[in-house]
Amino acid sequence: VSGATKEQILAFFEAHFPAAHQAGFVIDEVGDGGATLHLPTGDSHLRPGGTVSGPTMMALADTAMYVALLGRIGLVGLAVTTNLEVHFLNKPAPGVLTARCRLVKVGARLAVGLVEITDAASAEPVAVSTLTYSIPPR
Amino acid sequence: VSGATKEQILAFFEAHFPAAHQAGFVIDEVGDGGATLHLPTGDSHLRPGGTVSGPTMMALADTAMYVALLGRIGLVGLAVTTNLEVHFLNKPAPGVLTARCRLVKVGARLAVGLVEITDAASAEPVAVSTLTYSIPPR
Amino acid sequence: VSGATKEQILAFFEAHFPAAHQAGFVIDEVGDGGATLHLPTGDSHLRPGGTVSGPTMMALADTAMYVALLGRIGLVGLAVTTNLEVHFLNKPAPGVLTARCRLVKVGARLAVGLVEITDAASAEPVAVSTLTYSIPPR
Amino acid sequence: VSGATKEQILAFFEAHFPAAHQAGFVIDEVGDGGATLHLPTGDSHLRPGGTVSGPTMMALADTAMYVALLGRIGLVGLAVTTNLEVHFLNKPAPGVLTARCRLVKVGARLAVGLVEITDAASAEPVAVSTLTYSIPPR
Repeated sequence: VSGATKEQILAFFEAHFPAAHQAGFVIDEVGDGGATLHLPTGDSHLRPGGTVSGPTMMALADTAMYVALLGRIGLVGLAVTTNLEVHFLNKPAPGVLTARCRLVKVGARLAVGLVEITDAASAEPVAVSTLTYSIPPR
Repeated sequence: VSGATKEQILAFFEAHFPAAHQAGFVIDEVGDGGATLHLPTGDSHLRPGGTVSGPTMMALADTAMYVALLGRIGLVGLAVTTNLEVHFLNKPAPGVLTARCRLVKVGARLAVGLVEITDAASAEPVAVSTLTYSIPPR
Repeated sequence: VSGATKEQILAFFEAHFPAAHQAGFVIDEVGDGGATLHLPTGDSHLRPGGTVSGPTMMALADTAMYVALLGRIGLVGLAVTTNLEVHFLNKPAPGVLTARCRLVKVGARLAVGLVEITDAASAEPVAVSTLTYSIPPR
Repeated sequence: VSGATKEQILAFFEAHFPAAHQAGFVIDEVGDGGATLHLPTGDSHLRPGGTVSGPTMMALADTAMYVALLGRIGLVGLAVTTNLEVHFLNKPAPGVLTARCRLVKVGARLAVGLVEITDAASAEPVAVSTLTYSIPPR
């Protein structure tokens, strides 16, 4: 099994997950150990108070994990999230959010990754998330 | 401290969280111990394969918890989610999703609730979620 | 696949998990949908302040889930916990703790259960936990 | 508020949490951003199959978080774990387990830390855990 490149993942998303593409997620980097994405947040991502909504951050974390996993195991369409935990730590400032996913396990059946989301205003993360994906039998 | 009624919560959401209202969440019942909501899912909530997206279910769980909390402690705008865990158990069928939140703790500073999401097709839950809200000092 | 009875699970624990037996966990009931255990806590389970320690409650939740799973799928020794989340809600009073596990999914590869732990003093749970087990291929 | 040193924390544990001391946890390092502990596991920590038990790893993660928190905010006895999530990734080899806690948020009321547990045999973590502590009003 070999991983997919950023270009292969982009083409795969455009073909199969146009919603992720439309949501504005930008892949910065994909490597064997993880991936980095960013999201230029706009009005549609905001909650009252001008902060970015929780579901937007959860979708960003989930996409970062999925990209990292494809970067490791290749273009597997049927991998699905089985479990997501997220801690909202600080209110993100409007603007660009960056999500860094690090894979801590990629087994035959399960993969686990840690995601940290930061905004442009602070060195401290605005959210941390742990995600589990179930990998279909190959 | 006394809880808010369904009508009070609806008016509060319309005034302060129009996005939740627009997202199509419908409050069925609010009581001292929890709340029940449903969401008639449509095309905008779907992922490839015709299933409801994870962020849609997380937003539904989060709203169910928030409604349950307001039903217990009254119209507190600044309560925020600090932690959400969700397990995706079965692929939901398109159609109506129902979320039932049961409050298991409402303390002075933290509230914790369990949410089960079911679809119309099966008795088994499609997702279970545990949420923690931080309650501002009063 | 058929489930194990309480007597079969007891014999299996005595043979393979004597530590659980020695720890004092008592199986009250095993059914298709879950299991109930209790633990008469003693000095070895206590933390300063006279309350039951977190690891004791986590071990109790984990054992309740394992018993419930064996009650559904039979005596599978190699099922392992992949993920445990626990919320400590109220300080348990010393005395008997009861753990009720309800299975919310038993798939071919993963099982998920919810556990509530109560003490003898209060109707409110002292802890809630969600556990995932990985089931070996059969 | 200033943090406690390793020596202060050791004295505090001996006075107030002798069980942690007896359990064999060794503090390697305490800094502003986290802490590192190790545990030379022995027979009492093992499960059938010769692997370290889940509750042992959860207790180690919890202690690492508590030490890190004291290193940041000082000797606060009443900080308590409100939430722990753990993913068991790989079976630990018997021998020394190392837990590294990094604090990702220390607010007025809540602190959140990430803990990675590694064994001596592999570069990959055997477990990752996220913990939340509630900090009493000062």
